[in-house]
Amino acid sequence: MSRLEETRIAVVGGTGDLGFGLAVRLAKAYTVTIGSRDLARAADAAEKVSAVTRVRVEGKTNGEAAGGCDIAILAVPDLPSAELLSSLAGGLEEKLVISPIVPMVINDGIFSLSLSGGSAAERVAKALPKSHVAGAFHTVPASRLAQLGEELAYDVLVTADSREVYERAARVVSSVGELRPFYAGPLTVSRMVEGITPALLNVSRLNKLRSPSIRLV
Amino acid sequence: MSRLEETRIAVVGGTGDLGFGLAVRLAKAYTVTIGSRDLARAADAAEKVSAVTRVRVEGKTNGEAAGGCDIAILAVPDLPSAELLSSLAGGLEEKLVISPIVPMVINDGIFSLSLSGGSAAERVAKALPKSHVAGAFHTVPASRLAQLGEELAYDVLVTADSREVYERAARVVSSVGELRPFYAGPLTVSRMVEGITPALLNVSRLNKLRSPSIRLV
Repeated sequence: MSRLEETRIAVVGGTGDLGFGLAVRLAKAYTVTIGSRDLARAADAAEKVSAVTRVRVEGKTNGEAAGGCDIAILAVPDLPSAELLSSLAGGLEEKLVISPIVPMVINDGIFSLSLSGGSAAERVAKALPKSHVAGAFHTVPASRLAQLGEELAYDVLVTADSREVYERAARVVSSVGELRPFYAGPLTVSRMVEGITPALLNVSRLNKLRSPSIRLV
Repeated sequence: MSRLEETRIAVVGGTGDLGFGLAVRLAKAYTVTIGSRDLARAADAAEKVSAVTRVRVEGKTNGEAAGGCDIAILAVPDLPSAELLSSLAGGLEEKLVISPIVPMVINDGIFSLSLSGGSAAERVAKALPKSHVAGAFHTVPASRLAQLGEELAYDVLVTADSREVYERAARVVSSVGELRPFYAGPLTVSRMVEGITPALLNVSRLNKLRSPSIRLV
């Protein structure tokens, strides 16, 4: 794989486990910036990623990270607020925006999607009408992303409203370990794809499996 | 695996592809009856299964098949009608009823769940309140079930409202090829499990994969 350093990826909300794992993996091929509401936390997280990867990763506010990137990944733990999305909309115009978001609730130890209808990817697309939104990475366990020794031989279902946007997101997915992207259809089917994550979390808990992901066979 | 001949499985609505595939696989371990609205069609389908398996499989009306079984699988192509379910309710009291049903629509070539909320398994459980309902087999391609040479090294997510009902359904799943059952939680999460099937169908069509299933890794 050729080094894609000239492409800049912002991991927005990148101070959590998923953001750390994605940044660590992507820093090998892309120029990565970690965004956070809080600049000091972004800088801390970037320093940790730099220490692991020995590649310079910067920390910025979410707005600055979004404005200075070519591709943004919204690595936030839950549905981003309308305020956050509207503050990013200008900076993300005409850019690829990847949503790995799975909005979940847990009741009596059982995970479910928290949105009563629709999907996180559709909400993001609605709030960022001039961006090119794709859903991806939902079933890749953050804990495994963070362990660089894990080969990540998993399959990733990607939703996007055009094959061109899919192809761009698929290149990002393919750059991470052994992940294989598959086109799963337009954003309208994102709910079914996002729903695989709570299903896997339930399977994990009820069958004592550690961080399962999926492979198509 | 010990032969479970003494356990009688009715494949209700078993004249379609899924019913044929399940009957062919289950006839090796269980006494299988194929049910249909139409007795002649049931007898035809049973004869075909008997010819492939060299085990005697009977065809009966759905009502008779349900009344004379220990376990029923509702291998119908779409959500069964309220009339069908209420006609079966008495015969299926206290019995294990497995729903592999995934109610789908296709728009512009893209598959989606057709129920706006809830799941086929929950609908079945509501209509059969004295039965023990489990959801299973959703992601096992009918075309591969029917080919006895296919080892079926797939994983099957099973929903049920108790671990006891899960265990009973899991034994049926385990008797088919190399299928591995996993407990995915109560029937309330069936929608997420059922949604994996249209996602796989979209992936199949958009990436030119033949009848993909899944494996946990």
